[in-house]
Amino acid sequence: MNHFQEDLQAIFEEMVGWRRYLHQNPELSYHEYQTAEFVANHLRSWDIEVRTGVGGNGVVGFLRGGGEGPTVALRADMDALPIQDEKKSCAYASTKDGIMHACGHDAHTSTLLGIAKVASQHRAELKGNLVFLFQHAEEISPGGADSMIKAGALDGVDAVFGVHLWTPFPVGHVYTRAGAFMAAPDEFTIRIQGKGGHGGLPHQTIDSVYVASQVVVNLQSIVSRQVDPVEPCVVSIGSFHGGSSFNVIAESSVLNGTVRTFNPELRQDVKARIERIVEATAEMSQATFELNYKFGYPTVINDAGEAERFYKVGSALFGAESVHESPLIMAGEDFSYYLQERPGCFMFVGAGNVENGIIYPHHHPKFDIDERSMLNAAKLLIGMALDYMA
Amino acid sequence: MNHFQEDLQAIFEEMVGWRRYLHQNPELSYHEYQTAEFVANHLRSWDIEVRTGVGGNGVVGFLRGGGEGPTVALRADMDALPIQDEKKSCAYASTKDGIMHACGHDAHTSTLLGIAKVASQHRAELKGNLVFLFQHAEEISPGGADSMIKAGALDGVDAVFGVHLWTPFPVGHVYTRAGAFMAAPDEFTIRIQGKGGHGGLPHQTIDSVYVASQVVVNLQSIVSRQVDPVEPCVVSIGSFHGGSSFNVIAESSVLNGTVRTFNPELRQDVKARIERIVEATAEMSQATFELNYKFGYPTVINDAGEAERFYKVGSALFGAESVHESPLIMAGEDFSYYLQERPGCFMFVGAGNVENGIIYPHHHPKFDIDERSMLNAAKLLIGMALDYMA
Amino acid sequence: MNHFQEDLQAIFEEMVGWRRYLHQNPELSYHEYQTAEFVANHLRSWDIEVRTGVGGNGVVGFLRGGGEGPTVALRADMDALPIQDEKKSCAYASTKDGIMHACGHDAHTSTLLGIAKVASQHRAELKGNLVFLFQHAEEISPGGADSMIKAGALDGVDAVFGVHLWTPFPVGHVYTRAGAFMAAPDEFTIRIQGKGGHGGLPHQTIDSVYVASQVVVNLQSIVSRQVDPVEPCVVSIGSFHGGSSFNVIAESSVLNGTVRTFNPELRQDVKARIERIVEATAEMSQATFELNYKFGYPTVINDAGEAERFYKVGSALFGAESVHESPLIMAGEDFSYYLQERPGCFMFVGAGNVENGIIYPHHHPKFDIDERSMLNAAKLLIGMALDYMA
Amino acid sequence: MNHFQEDLQAIFEEMVGWRRYLHQNPELSYHEYQTAEFVANHLRSWDIEVRTGVGGNGVVGFLRGGGEGPTVALRADMDALPIQDEKKSCAYASTKDGIMHACGHDAHTSTLLGIAKVASQHRAELKGNLVFLFQHAEEISPGGADSMIKAGALDGVDAVFGVHLWTPFPVGHVYTRAGAFMAAPDEFTIRIQGKGGHGGLPHQTIDSVYVASQVVVNLQSIVSRQVDPVEPCVVSIGSFHGGSSFNVIAESSVLNGTVRTFNPELRQDVKARIERIVEATAEMSQATFELNYKFGYPTVINDAGEAERFYKVGSALFGAESVHESPLIMAGEDFSYYLQERPGCFMFVGAGNVENGIIYPHHHPKFDIDERSMLNAAKLLIGMALDYMA
Repeated sequence: MNHFQEDLQAIFEEMVGWRRYLHQNPELSYHEYQTAEFVANHLRSWDIEVRTGVGGNGVVGFLRGGGEGPTVALRADMDALPIQDEKKSCAYASTKDGIMHACGHDAHTSTLLGIAKVASQHRAELKGNLVFLFQHAEEISPGGADSMIKAGALDGVDAVFGVHLWTPFPVGHVYTRAGAFMAAPDEFTIRIQGKGGHGGLPHQTIDSVYVASQVVVNLQSIVSRQVDPVEPCVVSIGSFHGGSSFNVIAESSVLNGTVRTFNPELRQDVKARIERIVEATAEMSQATFELNYKFGYPTVINDAGEAERFYKVGSALFGAESVHESPLIMAGEDFSYYLQERPGCFMFVGAGNVENGIIYPHHHPKFDIDERSMLNAAKLLIGMALDYMA
Repeated sequence: MNHFQEDLQAIFEEMVGWRRYLHQNPELSYHEYQTAEFVANHLRSWDIEVRTGVGGNGVVGFLRGGGEGPTVALRADMDALPIQDEKKSCAYASTKDGIMHACGHDAHTSTLLGIAKVASQHRAELKGNLVFLFQHAEEISPGGADSMIKAGALDGVDAVFGVHLWTPFPVGHVYTRAGAFMAAPDEFTIRIQGKGGHGGLPHQTIDSVYVASQVVVNLQSIVSRQVDPVEPCVVSIGSFHGGSSFNVIAESSVLNGTVRTFNPELRQDVKARIERIVEATAEMSQATFELNYKFGYPTVINDAGEAERFYKVGSALFGAESVHESPLIMAGEDFSYYLQERPGCFMFVGAGNVENGIIYPHHHPKFDIDERSMLNAAKLLIGMALDYMA
Repeated sequence: MNHFQEDLQAIFEEMVGWRRYLHQNPELSYHEYQTAEFVANHLRSWDIEVRTGVGGNGVVGFLRGGGEGPTVALRADMDALPIQDEKKSCAYASTKDGIMHACGHDAHTSTLLGIAKVASQHRAELKGNLVFLFQHAEEISPGGADSMIKAGALDGVDAVFGVHLWTPFPVGHVYTRAGAFMAAPDEFTIRIQGKGGHGGLPHQTIDSVYVASQVVVNLQSIVSRQVDPVEPCVVSIGSFHGGSSFNVIAESSVLNGTVRTFNPELRQDVKARIERIVEATAEMSQATFELNYKFGYPTVINDAGEAERFYKVGSALFGAESVHESPLIMAGEDFSYYLQERPGCFMFVGAGNVENGIIYPHHHPKFDIDERSMLNAAKLLIGMALDYMA
Repeated sequence: MNHFQEDLQAIFEEMVGWRRYLHQNPELSYHEYQTAEFVANHLRSWDIEVRTGVGGNGVVGFLRGGGEGPTVALRADMDALPIQDEKKSCAYASTKDGIMHACGHDAHTSTLLGIAKVASQHRAELKGNLVFLFQHAEEISPGGADSMIKAGALDGVDAVFGVHLWTPFPVGHVYTRAGAFMAAPDEFTIRIQGKGGHGGLPHQTIDSVYVASQVVVNLQSIVSRQVDPVEPCVVSIGSFHGGSSFNVIAESSVLNGTVRTFNPELRQDVKARIERIVEATAEMSQATFELNYKFGYPTVINDAGEAERFYKVGSALFGAESVHESPLIMAGEDFSYYLQERPGCFMFVGAGNVENGIIYPHHHPKFDIDERSMLNAAKLLIGMALDYMA
């Protein structure tokens, strides 16, 4: 089946084209209308059975193989982020103000489209079926995976595989980890309610900007003092908004943040500690607060056997020296929902390239990938599927 | 001349009507187009000579008295604030989203209109002339006073008086202070430049929200540790804005704030201390920063003789027990520019009323006044002018 | 009576000698045994009536004048501070480890001794009596003044005067202020009770050093945010002690601090705010606390008439250009107790000299005075007494 | 050789007696004079060859076995901690003020004495030799291990084993981990140099207590923001000392702390980050600083083969269900020096017992152990040695 790999190579430029088109036309989570249509139209043009609107903007393609065998699902996510693209003088930079594919989902979608096209040309040879899961809304909880599953996306599926291109890892290398692999990401909003007033008369007010700033500083102690140092844990505040004038004390300020853990007990504990810190910090200045804590995706837990398959398939494709056990990853992924339902494996494909300036982390305004990573990802995903069928 | 006072009393309801109309139709500093037209039309209807567009949206009315004598200017300011009116179920609440007369300039304007109307009816009896200064842009530096003076607003004027209605003081009472009276208010913007990235991978980023929060906390030490406790001084952050997503570390965060001092040397010193703290706090996390510090209005310094006149006139009007030496006021006022050019006095007129729930400080989203304070203000202002002419 | 001034001049070297001896032999508050004996012996040698052990280590001298007239008390304090003298290569540096006359009480005592010696030589000419109050324990609440008064030190006294040499003011100048002059100084101790444990396992502990550090930082907001900027107020932490090993988390940490206010309501309010901040900060980390707040001396309030006398006497002695209205002083003084009982005035005598390196603030390890200030202080004190008698 | 285990059981009460004696008579690191003598006397009494003063207060016993075979070293540490024993109503509490065996070294020493006594009785049966390493100064860098090695303690030794009793693990269970096991512990001292002065006049001072408190708070960001969340890392401040009076601003304050890492690169990085934070925090208030950073023991890295032996020996002794892979341990151990020189394994022996109130972490003022853990430790250590010889 080596021609699969060759054929993927052959359409690499086309994959790059798709990716750059999507990069210029990003859509926020739950708003992937054009992207879903783009995907569905391509799948249909290759005579692949298509369901749209699956659990939201999800698109599911079904390709029946010529031979009997298991049904293997491959998944890509399609949504972009509310980040302003700052890639200067890049021909394919986002054309939409404040929206950007800063996590590589454009490339995931293009990679899976490439696989679908090539697989559709070789359907007669397949000893089983392929399901292409083009998922909406990976970036925002509750995420598209859960709703797509509820809408039947895994019906009849025996195993599921997915990849994430990853710029902190160098292009040419692939990674995964048996068992717990990616963090459970939670989300919270804190509203500090103070008392507005004149900027020159702070004693007549309760300064919500000051109180919320203390909250940000005080929250650091959860990770630095209160959590077992060998338990990976992150508490981050992503946004802080309070006040609208230099000389008016802000009546209220709002923080948004995320918690990352691998251990379910710790997850509950950190929530309680955030509550305690926010309550005490507000009380200290006689402010009040609202805390809205939302548990996000579960931890991504890879099937141990499928992780073994990754080492085998990866080594055959890229050489053993390019296949690695990944460290724990603090990012979350709603791929975890698929893995709660079916055996499978989520894998990372190196997409960084220091020499070429591909150095920005995910969610960075200058994020970009070494596009050759898409070809590696496509080879790995189809390789896992074919090996599973074999 | 007691009929002045009686006539003001007689048109009180009309003044209230003007004030409520302006309260419902606030305009931001430098955008007082409708307000200026409202003022100019009324002045003209009373046969008062009107100049519009004075140094911006300023309106100057001139009323020649029947007798020879000095020319006395009375001033009101017309601009509103970028605050959302939160007065629930108040018939005259602001109708403009995010704009509100939260400092009482609507009432200042209406008060001076009331004086103008009554004075115009008694012009023959005046032993001198009255200039009505309806000033734009008091809330935002550089302010309208300086540009109105440059546009000739004080030409021919011998003395200048102004009032501020003040809810922390009870209605029925009046206040001023010889010499330094109101603070010099400065304005600054701090931009903390970090490095964006994934919320679960803080070590790959420089977290501008965290750094800016530290700046807010660290700035407290200027007033608490570094400034002579007997020197009144305020450093307040009015707004904090950074980030747009719960799981993306904010690339940059922006703080806006104000400094209030009475002592010019301290003013320079505080600026240097802010610079030192911001620079060191940024450096601590390897962030960078921009600090833009803008010196605002000078200190309001009342003429000692005119402050004496206030005690005399105020006592005659309201009784000695209602006339007070004011403490130093941390708010600034560009009335200071008039006082740099002409002798005069700026006075506070109590506008609070605890029993009626008129308890909110200036710049508060629920700010309101006891409207009877307008009548007191009108009596005081015309009283000062007539006494000066006498 | 000009010979008083001349005679003081004549014994200036002797006064310097006494001061340097006391400077080398400082004694802590409530331990002024040798100092009291030194004073008593000198007074007796000049045939002055002496009471020792007055309310503690206090010494009271009584000098009956040749003529009828009022009895005027002059006061000096005798105690030193628990500070390590760091005056390098100073011949008269403290010989006692960790104890130092870092506030000038050695010079106050010597000054009053000088007055006593000269006055004893001129007793026949005095139209009234002099009482010399050599007070112990001014630095530590409850202070010696209150107990000396209770022990009868003011019996028969008509008026009381005292001075403080002050290095922030230049030698040759004198200062006071009618009404409220010096702050009410309170003292507090905060014990943060955490949970000890291994330095590498912070999550098994409650880190009292971290919690107490947060308390120190959070207390800054009282002055910077919560107190009216025109009300002078200080909250200072003088000492922080917690832990005994680099790798053991400290079970508990103890803070000692002081509050300075002029306004009795604010004084109560600040106490409540400290309680609130300490409680909330402890709660945030699940630590507990004890707060022990001790109200110290009252505000020093000078009699308005005696302050007027200061201007007259000071101008005659030093020239009007050397006599000043003092700003409010944040330091406290138990001289306030004398002023609660008798009319009088507490005065500051400049003791700084920038050119000669006399630049260190009171309580500084390198504190020293321009010794000529003692002569000025002596002239001023006896001048006030003689003028009062006249 | 089962009689070894039985004989250890038989002298358990004696081991408890030794331990309680040592617990009552703790000696600080580098001062283990009585303890070393106690050990040496016992060893000699059992006819074991003894070297004292090895690299300090170290004691080395040599027991030649009856048969040929390898030489295996077993190690115990002897020093106590500068902690006040707070075990109320405990008959064997420390009799020395401020010194306590709060880490269990008393029990380590007693355990190894027990092994030595029993082994001396069975020397004829040993197929190899035993070396007993009674090490001084494990708690304080540079530690006794390195100097004992330099003094020849490992000469002729083939393998080395050691244990730590561990209260966070339940008695009856044993633990280790192949490869990196225990952290590299570093030590640092930070002196913040401010400017002393009067507590009521903070603006004339530089408040070292405030600056050092900020340092403590700011250091939290290293672990919470700047270090990869999957890299275990601790930065703890164990002690904070500044100032000696409530109303004197502290001229200087001193912090002592520890850093724990497993990764040598991170270790260097954390040091640099501490420097940056301390420098910037001092600069912010115009204070100066000295930072003295001392690298401590290397990471404890167990030989993979000897860790395998642990699983075998442990399972035979305690049952497979009582033998565990340990998580990474944030504490450091200078056992790492022995493991740099010889193959071996360091092991943890559960010593906690929640039902009996043995719940306090190591270095806690109420620390105690379930003494039965000594017997388990003795069986495990001699078991490893005998298995190695076999």
